[in-house]
Amino acid sequence: MSDVKYIDIQKTILSHNDEAARTVRQRLAADSVTMINLMAAPGAGKTSLILQTIDALSQKHRIAVIEGDIESTVDAEKIAAKKIPAVQLRTGGMCHLDAPMIEAALDELDLQNLDLIIIENIGNLVCPAEYDLGAHLKIMMTSVPEGDDKVLKYPAMFSACEALLVNKTDYLPDPGFDRELLQMRVKNLNPDMHLFFLSCRSGAGIDAWADWLHRRIQAARR
Amino acid sequence: MSDVKYIDIQKTILSHNDEAARTVRQRLAADSVTMINLMAAPGAGKTSLILQTIDALSQKHRIAVIEGDIESTVDAEKIAAKKIPAVQLRTGGMCHLDAPMIEAALDELDLQNLDLIIIENIGNLVCPAEYDLGAHLKIMMTSVPEGDDKVLKYPAMFSACEALLVNKTDYLPDPGFDRELLQMRVKNLNPDMHLFFLSCRSGAGIDAWADWLHRRIQAARR
Repeated sequence: MSDVKYIDIQKTILSHNDEAARTVRQRLAADSVTMINLMAAPGAGKTSLILQTIDALSQKHRIAVIEGDIESTVDAEKIAAKKIPAVQLRTGGMCHLDAPMIEAALDELDLQNLDLIIIENIGNLVCPAEYDLGAHLKIMMTSVPEGDDKVLKYPAMFSACEALLVNKTDYLPDPGFDRELLQMRVKNLNPDMHLFFLSCRSGAGIDAWADWLHRRIQAARR
Repeated sequence: MSDVKYIDIQKTILSHNDEAARTVRQRLAADSVTMINLMAAPGAGKTSLILQTIDALSQKHRIAVIEGDIESTVDAEKIAAKKIPAVQLRTGGMCHLDAPMIEAALDELDLQNLDLIIIENIGNLVCPAEYDLGAHLKIMMTSVPEGDDKVLKYPAMFSACEALLVNKTDYLPDPGFDRELLQMRVKNLNPDMHLFFLSCRSGAGIDAWADWLHRRIQAARR
């Protein structure tokens, strides 16, 4: 359909990326640090989720955040206000983070004094799925107002992730969102996916997510 | 920060693309067809907006739709149910439409019997901004639950577009959305941008958008 050869270019980029992702994993393993790659559409609530997760887990774990943004630094400033180490990656137009960027971010963090790094990826349901960042957990987030059909439309993202957080349950009931239908679609696509319904605004459901993450961090340390 | 050379690759792809976009524009001009490129985040309501626009304008103009989707065909089926010619472009993982894809889609349409083509781009606030599809109007859509800060975070998209449609006003009032703040941010970034607040669910505000589009189609014909 197109006379432009995207595929080979993509392969070259991805093999460079995978090499960097291996290095990232080795560096994290050396200091027993767990890293999660949080992905979602713009406006789903990634930054709010990170702030809630910090509140829930910062007594138990030493946390840092790597903030991916195309242009602004508003999110990193919100994180820094929590007195948590934050590294801002401004991609200047690029639609995803890649592993070499994460390597550079790790240089700015004191890994020996960390248990958990949360990466906030660029708000995008397509490109981030392709890039292994060296994270131990890939977490997808969607939200009630986006509707219940995102799993059908962006299957690569949803099938690559260990858990799906459905944010903005404070908007329920919503005529465009059928909870059972979403659960069925997730089960069809990725039966092992853990599903959490929550509201970063009200705090509902945050505990269950934080407990699950806490157990994963502990398991990784053994 | 990264040792992967993205920039040159991007330039090559874009010069191929711009050539195809010129061809698209010539083909549309030969039959006085107006084409719009509708872009938004996943779940903002692009398909609903297209359905509402068809209802508002199909008595005045002969309309066709080019549906960009990564995987599913659910949106194209909704359009076809309106008895409107629809071409489905399944990108199979690609995060944006490009002009060669639009050339292929035009081959499937009877341009002599059309006044307006609406392209529904892939749900993505980053990559589609880079690709000229040969459309006359680039239209951005956002929605109330996404929050009022998207203009700051995805400036390339917002500054490239002639109009911004803010959908889901039926969710107002919403503590995460300040209408005046959004208007101010839009004015700072792109003072010529036309701003429409509407709800595809209730139909509120659709008339003002449809009238504006109608006048743009008429102006293009002169």
